[in-house]
Amino acid sequence: MIRIGVIGYGYWGPQIVRNFHGAADCEVAVVCDRSPKALSRVKQAYPGVHVTSDPCEVLTATDVDAVAVVTPVWTHFELAKAALENGKHVFVEKPFTSTVAQAEQLVDLAIEKNLQIMVDHTFLFTGAVKKIRQLVEEGALGNLYYYDSTRVNLGLFQHDVNVIWDLAPHDLSIVDHLFNATPEAVVATGQNHLNGLEDLAYITIYYGNKMIAHINVNWLSPVKVRTTLIGGEKKMLVWNDLDADEKIKIYDKGVKMNNGQQVHELLVSYRSGDMYAPKIEHTEALAEEAKYFVDCVSHNVRPMNDGVAGLRVVTMLEAAEKSLKDRGRPVTV
Amino acid sequence: MIRIGVIGYGYWGPQIVRNFHGAADCEVAVVCDRSPKALSRVKQAYPGVHVTSDPCEVLTATDVDAVAVVTPVWTHFELAKAALENGKHVFVEKPFTSTVAQAEQLVDLAIEKNLQIMVDHTFLFTGAVKKIRQLVEEGALGNLYYYDSTRVNLGLFQHDVNVIWDLAPHDLSIVDHLFNATPEAVVATGQNHLNGLEDLAYITIYYGNKMIAHINVNWLSPVKVRTTLIGGEKKMLVWNDLDADEKIKIYDKGVKMNNGQQVHELLVSYRSGDMYAPKIEHTEALAEEAKYFVDCVSHNVRPMNDGVAGLRVVTMLEAAEKSLKDRGRPVTV
Amino acid sequence: MIRIGVIGYGYWGPQIVRNFHGAADCEVAVVCDRSPKALSRVKQAYPGVHVTSDPCEVLTATDVDAVAVVTPVWTHFELAKAALENGKHVFVEKPFTSTVAQAEQLVDLAIEKNLQIMVDHTFLFTGAVKKIRQLVEEGALGNLYYYDSTRVNLGLFQHDVNVIWDLAPHDLSIVDHLFNATPEAVVATGQNHLNGLEDLAYITIYYGNKMIAHINVNWLSPVKVRTTLIGGEKKMLVWNDLDADEKIKIYDKGVKMNNGQQVHELLVSYRSGDMYAPKIEHTEALAEEAKYFVDCVSHNVRPMNDGVAGLRVVTMLEAAEKSLKDRGRPVTV
Amino acid sequence: MIRIGVIGYGYWGPQIVRNFHGAADCEVAVVCDRSPKALSRVKQAYPGVHVTSDPCEVLTATDVDAVAVVTPVWTHFELAKAALENGKHVFVEKPFTSTVAQAEQLVDLAIEKNLQIMVDHTFLFTGAVKKIRQLVEEGALGNLYYYDSTRVNLGLFQHDVNVIWDLAPHDLSIVDHLFNATPEAVVATGQNHLNGLEDLAYITIYYGNKMIAHINVNWLSPVKVRTTLIGGEKKMLVWNDLDADEKIKIYDKGVKMNNGQQVHELLVSYRSGDMYAPKIEHTEALAEEAKYFVDCVSHNVRPMNDGVAGLRVVTMLEAAEKSLKDRGRPVTV
Repeated sequence: MIRIGVIGYGYWGPQIVRNFHGAADCEVAVVCDRSPKALSRVKQAYPGVHVTSDPCEVLTATDVDAVAVVTPVWTHFELAKAALENGKHVFVEKPFTSTVAQAEQLVDLAIEKNLQIMVDHTFLFTGAVKKIRQLVEEGALGNLYYYDSTRVNLGLFQHDVNVIWDLAPHDLSIVDHLFNATPEAVVATGQNHLNGLEDLAYITIYYGNKMIAHINVNWLSPVKVRTTLIGGEKKMLVWNDLDADEKIKIYDKGVKMNNGQQVHELLVSYRSGDMYAPKIEHTEALAEEAKYFVDCVSHNVRPMNDGVAGLRVVTMLEAAEKSLKDRGRPVTV
Repeated sequence: MIRIGVIGYGYWGPQIVRNFHGAADCEVAVVCDRSPKALSRVKQAYPGVHVTSDPCEVLTATDVDAVAVVTPVWTHFELAKAALENGKHVFVEKPFTSTVAQAEQLVDLAIEKNLQIMVDHTFLFTGAVKKIRQLVEEGALGNLYYYDSTRVNLGLFQHDVNVIWDLAPHDLSIVDHLFNATPEAVVATGQNHLNGLEDLAYITIYYGNKMIAHINVNWLSPVKVRTTLIGGEKKMLVWNDLDADEKIKIYDKGVKMNNGQQVHELLVSYRSGDMYAPKIEHTEALAEEAKYFVDCVSHNVRPMNDGVAGLRVVTMLEAAEKSLKDRGRPVTV
Repeated sequence: MIRIGVIGYGYWGPQIVRNFHGAADCEVAVVCDRSPKALSRVKQAYPGVHVTSDPCEVLTATDVDAVAVVTPVWTHFELAKAALENGKHVFVEKPFTSTVAQAEQLVDLAIEKNLQIMVDHTFLFTGAVKKIRQLVEEGALGNLYYYDSTRVNLGLFQHDVNVIWDLAPHDLSIVDHLFNATPEAVVATGQNHLNGLEDLAYITIYYGNKMIAHINVNWLSPVKVRTTLIGGEKKMLVWNDLDADEKIKIYDKGVKMNNGQQVHELLVSYRSGDMYAPKIEHTEALAEEAKYFVDCVSHNVRPMNDGVAGLRVVTMLEAAEKSLKDRGRPVTV
Repeated sequence: MIRIGVIGYGYWGPQIVRNFHGAADCEVAVVCDRSPKALSRVKQAYPGVHVTSDPCEVLTATDVDAVAVVTPVWTHFELAKAALENGKHVFVEKPFTSTVAQAEQLVDLAIEKNLQIMVDHTFLFTGAVKKIRQLVEEGALGNLYYYDSTRVNLGLFQHDVNVIWDLAPHDLSIVDHLFNATPEAVVATGQNHLNGLEDLAYITIYYGNKMIAHINVNWLSPVKVRTTLIGGEKKMLVWNDLDADEKIKIYDKGVKMNNGQQVHELLVSYRSGDMYAPKIEHTEALAEEAKYFVDCVSHNVRPMNDGVAGLRVVTMLEAAEKSLKDRGRPVTV
């Protein structure tokens, strides 16, 4: 039985509490938030859970095995560090930390203390990403050409970070998970129109094997779009996360180079065949992730979305931020 | 009556001939192509039109007032130059020329000879772009935040230029036409997977008034997309050029900054109202453009899509190419 | 304060309890279900609510002002009758009763006892139907030509009635509410492929003013469709209830008769203008309906969806059933 | 070499002439129309084709092997009859004739004269219908449950017949071609709102093997829909003829009856798997049909869409018309 203390009961905290509460071999022991209203919502929904407005109470509680940090990103480092120092495993909201240096320090501390860190890269646990990973691993797509994601909508969900730190961690964690590719350089452009924080941005990542990723994030779009194109040598796919029934469509389409002998001769031919939309699991991603966290902590096993995975994502965010501040100057990673 | 000679009867030439043939006060006098098959197709469709495989015959014909250059881009400069030197007005396929220097030389020559150049920026004559321009001019959208276009499909339409020179001139000419904004810097990233020419690219343009444009062009997409988001302070629109009936949807959505007094206080509020899809004219853009060319030449009036407009687009293409070769290094324009 | 007893906690019961629980001036006093599991779910969610497996306990409770009957349709009559006889107001799931005779008897009994009956025609409380009603009342659509609904999906939601009794009450209550039209005849066709109950059916209703309604219901469709076309003299609309953002699209399209003088001369001309998607309220329909029930009962006011409205729907269902059994023979109503 | 005379050069005639003109082993010898304007369009497009305003000239021409009748339906019988009597094969626009008696007479006459009749059921030659037929013949769908077509738009394409005679022949010929099922009864309902002819109608056809077909045709719809659902025991499909790329989607969905032992027990279970959109041929249907006509006539072979097929469709139209006039009274066929 893993006992969990949760710090932060704002937008995402209730999801975390609900899913850990519902997970087997796991108990939410205490929830902490500065807001009395938030705490009274906890009490109403989970009469048996202890509440507090003091994070220290969670961080030092003797009956808590793991701490879930579900607070704004600028507080992650201090809370996670304190939790590790007090011998607690840590589950941290994405993005892992505000800086690479912080992430490295937490990773080292966890190793030293023989504790687990899991970063909440929820998308890795969705049916869609699991299916795409399976296709990639089977080689169904062939060599990969590109990952191109559009993640736009009307609405600022975070007011202390820009749109890159808010929305891009999703794609960065997905690309990191799906493709066995080493990033070489990051280019980010964008603009702020409202409160000084960039509200739209475009990120390109160059990889060693010629793979390229592009991420379009925007808080000022009149329509919500969550569409990713993935192009491979053999097949290509479209993942529309807003399509309830046909999230992933795999196209038997491709391109072949011919041996042309003359200048200006058309060297490329196209193939267009059937389309196929596999059935995608409908399980709640966060429920799976909670179960996985409990398993990893119980058996002291490193999760795939560990601190090092979180560090890789923060490294890309930091590089993108640097490029963005310099109007797209490429930043080597 | 304007007599037109057309050079090039490949993919786009037949459209040009058909539309000038159908225009009032205009006659297609001669069509030139290197391919005998192309010329026999001309003869079959237009028994009265003279054909030739020698461009000089068109360029020097005494009964030709204007020459339409519908050939690969690397030949535009020589053909247009010869036509102007022979006292002919010129209609040139987009992109205008291969280099800024060539474009400048043609612009100067036309002024010297008192002749008109029109660059075939066809999209300016579509019902969709005319409607968007009207909305912008009326101030319906308010201050403009961004233009974000996705123009992707499976298929290499040109084999002597990369995807930027093939597909981006559409968006560059549209942005140039719609928005009264001065470009400051261009950032382009991309990758080539097949024949050494980039087959996918992402272009960002920074403008002086904080407007930003982003253009996603890709020859390796499993699906065809022609969608542009335009965000303004008052309203936002989505232009889906593949939607037969509702090409433009205007959203009464917006964002307002509030006067927050505390750190981390949410300073932004959102507004979401009706959506409206105005009726869009269904006339053929190229027919209108042909008519406009005949008018401009007849009255010796500078067209809006003149050589200078063509030059502006080539300037952006050249800058994007330079940035692309340097993995996104920003290029000032 | 109205105290409500709820009988039935299966598929729909939890929605009813949640919404009455959340309504002002209202308290769920007791919930009844035959299943102990269902009752333990009630206890978990609402520790303060009394539970019982005996409907009589609800029907005779002295501290209950109104009874909500959320059970299979063949039990509605007995339960509602007992409730009225015990002086309770009644909220009944749709369809009201299994027969016209039952509905009439309940309506008479409620009048005699000076009690209110509300039939759960939930759709009347949706933003979409309220908007359409507003358009009809304002005359925006002009004289109405037709209502044509497709309500199909894979899945038998009820196993004791056929697809007409399961799905058609939605459309029948909507048509009854929206259009001031008197039905004259019903034609229903269909087929049963699985368990002897019709799993797909097509209903046509002729109205006095030439309005016609058509309802396509099907449990064997591979895709879920909830689309209604409404045609009027001035405007036409499409209501796609599955579209999250643009549920209702109003088309400025129409037809005009011309005075042709010759046989076989085209007498009809078409008009096609803008399309407009008004913002639709996102409030939960059942929450509004619960509030409305509490208001009606508190002030002893007849609801619009009273027993007589329920009776009108059951009349159409009975006629459709009769026609269906006779392979489409028209049944006068 | 088959020489063809075409009578009628209105809306559909130009398509017929173009496709026979393009077919191998075939020559369009003469085109007839009452309108001088139509004839001058013929001369412009096909300078070598003889034109006339007198049908008799076509019907009696000694150098004509076959006559294509592309005129309003009420003239089909007289023209086809004269053609057959003059020893010409006949290609007739759909619907074949205005009455069953006429169709029977033409079928008999063709047999007597040893000539071929082909009725222009163009849809049978589309890639979509060919693919569906292949699926049905392979048994991929299993036993068929239903065919449910929606064919609606704004616009009266014919002004001498109602919407059933205009639009339903498409579906009637498709159902006749795809499914090996004997119709038993027809029910048709509808309404006329403009010129006395029904502008919307709903047709149900009962077949012997419990298959049921439903056809929704409407000239007063604000949106164009061409969608057909086909449900089978093993699989189900959606054919959206307006979808350029994914016309047919096959769903691995189904229903299974279980052996339940108790009253009101759920006896049905559902299966939901992958979706698959096969590549559909893009060839022009009418070009294939023209080629097939030339083949059938050259080798004196009965086409699948012969006069008897045309008769079967007219039989259904006549029955539907009868039912429609009687507000849906079922008509046995």
